[in-house]
Amino acid sequence: MLEVLFYVAITAEAMTAALAAGRRQLDWFGVCLLASVTALGGGTTRDLLLGHYPLYWVGNPYVLLLVCGAALATIIGARMMHRLRWPFLLLDSVGLVVFTIVGCNIGMEMGVHPIIVIVAGMVTGIVGGILRDVLVNEVPLVFQGELYASVSIVTAAVYYFGITAGLPSDLVVLIALAIGFPFRVLAILYGWKMPKFVYDKDLR
Amino acid sequence: MLEVLFYVAITAEAMTAALAAGRRQLDWFGVCLLASVTALGGGTTRDLLLGHYPLYWVGNPYVLLLVCGAALATIIGARMMHRLRWPFLLLDSVGLVVFTIVGCNIGMEMGVHPIIVIVAGMVTGIVGGILRDVLVNEVPLVFQGELYASVSIVTAAVYYFGITAGLPSDLVVLIALAIGFPFRVLAILYGWKMPKFVYDKDLR
Amino acid sequence: MLEVLFYVAITAEAMTAALAAGRRQLDWFGVCLLASVTALGGGTTRDLLLGHYPLYWVGNPYVLLLVCGAALATIIGARMMHRLRWPFLLLDSVGLVVFTIVGCNIGMEMGVHPIIVIVAGMVTGIVGGILRDVLVNEVPLVFQGELYASVSIVTAAVYYFGITAGLPSDLVVLIALAIGFPFRVLAILYGWKMPKFVYDKDLR
Repeated sequence: MLEVLFYVAITAEAMTAALAAGRRQLDWFGVCLLASVTALGGGTTRDLLLGHYPLYWVGNPYVLLLVCGAALATIIGARMMHRLRWPFLLLDSVGLVVFTIVGCNIGMEMGVHPIIVIVAGMVTGIVGGILRDVLVNEVPLVFQGELYASVSIVTAAVYYFGITAGLPSDLVVLIALAIGFPFRVLAILYGWKMPKFVYDKDLR
Repeated sequence: MLEVLFYVAITAEAMTAALAAGRRQLDWFGVCLLASVTALGGGTTRDLLLGHYPLYWVGNPYVLLLVCGAALATIIGARMMHRLRWPFLLLDSVGLVVFTIVGCNIGMEMGVHPIIVIVAGMVTGIVGGILRDVLVNEVPLVFQGELYASVSIVTAAVYYFGITAGLPSDLVVLIALAIGFPFRVLAILYGWKMPKFVYDKDLR
Repeated sequence: MLEVLFYVAITAEAMTAALAAGRRQLDWFGVCLLASVTALGGGTTRDLLLGHYPLYWVGNPYVLLLVCGAALATIIGARMMHRLRWPFLLLDSVGLVVFTIVGCNIGMEMGVHPIIVIVAGMVTGIVGGILRDVLVNEVPLVFQGELYASVSIVTAAVYYFGITAGLPSDLVVLIALAIGFPFRVLAILYGWKMPKFVYDKDLR
């Protein structure tokens, strides 16, 4: 089940990235590259930081074709995409939780410290979106109050403690989804925000 | 021959990066760093993604001196550079093809999947320019319709299939140059562009 | 002593990064992430480039708690921070020198070429600040004339030649500090600047 959700999430991330590319009027190649970076950049960053080779998509290159296919399909179907706002937000929320779980799994396989397991989950969940925003020259959304990283950290913590408590892994995946997914959806619905730090004096 | 062209290409990339730095009024150190990132960033990114250590310039640090030397020479000779528009564009095109071939070679040595060989070639060819644009805070040129990545992908595919077909490697290098180089030059001359994806509805 | 200074420097970098985050009105999570990237990004980049695993903070995850703690303390204490301009500038200068020395040490342990030892020191010293500026969408300060990289290079060279000359390492640390620290402070006091390269003709 996790694997199916993983591919669904990668496809959804690729499609939202393609729409972001379209808003910046990138060319078709730029659309595919931005989709790849967004969908695979979190896992790639995690693997680079942990020294976990080969990278996922280097070992399974067909995932690149999936991502580029999804991006090109988005170009063709773009006119009907604005009707799909909610499906996309829901898939994006599922993706955040699923990516986080996958990242925690890699961390635990490598036997790193619990703090790093949670960091590995969070990096997998959120770095793709940060790279997307930096590449199209925007201050990353995730820094502007969206409850995105927080959802990822909570999910990672739940998943890590569930697994170390010895619960069956399928059950822990379900629990993590059942906590992380509604948390993110409610944050969108009710506009929950992280407090901002506003500082207007110049130190230099 | 490939090695000579490789050093010529690195020098040319360093010089065009130095001019880009001058347009943003960077200081001399910034000029050298931007030149290094542009000239060596593609190969470095490829090596990080494939886990191919030591990085090229770590094993051959004199290439750093070459790059910084070329950058500083550009500062001194900047006044006559605008007469050299065409030589630079031609060298840049040679560089794109040569970097792509070098990247494919590394991929094939490591025995990765053909798709990844082509990605390795493309990353080597184009990522330096993307990093340069991100560092000086511009949306990367390569996403804005320039036929740059496409040239790299075509070159990589030609090179990969030539080598796997068992042709002598010098011949395949020549064929790849004979296809990739005029492709890029014609794209510049006739203003061939990738189609853009324009999407102006906001999903969020 | 080097270790104490190292933790002081990491804390100081985290706090200045938190203030930069506050000027861009990032949320609390963004403040912590920007602090982590700034304080640990230089060492992380060095380790990735040299293939030196595990990364420092992966092996010692408590340093992440230190960085985030310092960032959150900055949010709370921000109102009194503008009185601390000089202490911060001094700590930042110590940090630059200490990070450079630590980076040189890693390079020498790995037995790389002297040029790469100096590059490893410089990357450790300055890349955190570059990543901070790129993430908040500014052209990096270090490219705009500040004598920052130069101080790092001089410090690295002094340290490398001191160690290879066989002097006791504590003494070499003191010498490097005694040269690098006042160099940076005088550069700030007297407004010493690197010359800029200004080029206003468009090549393309």
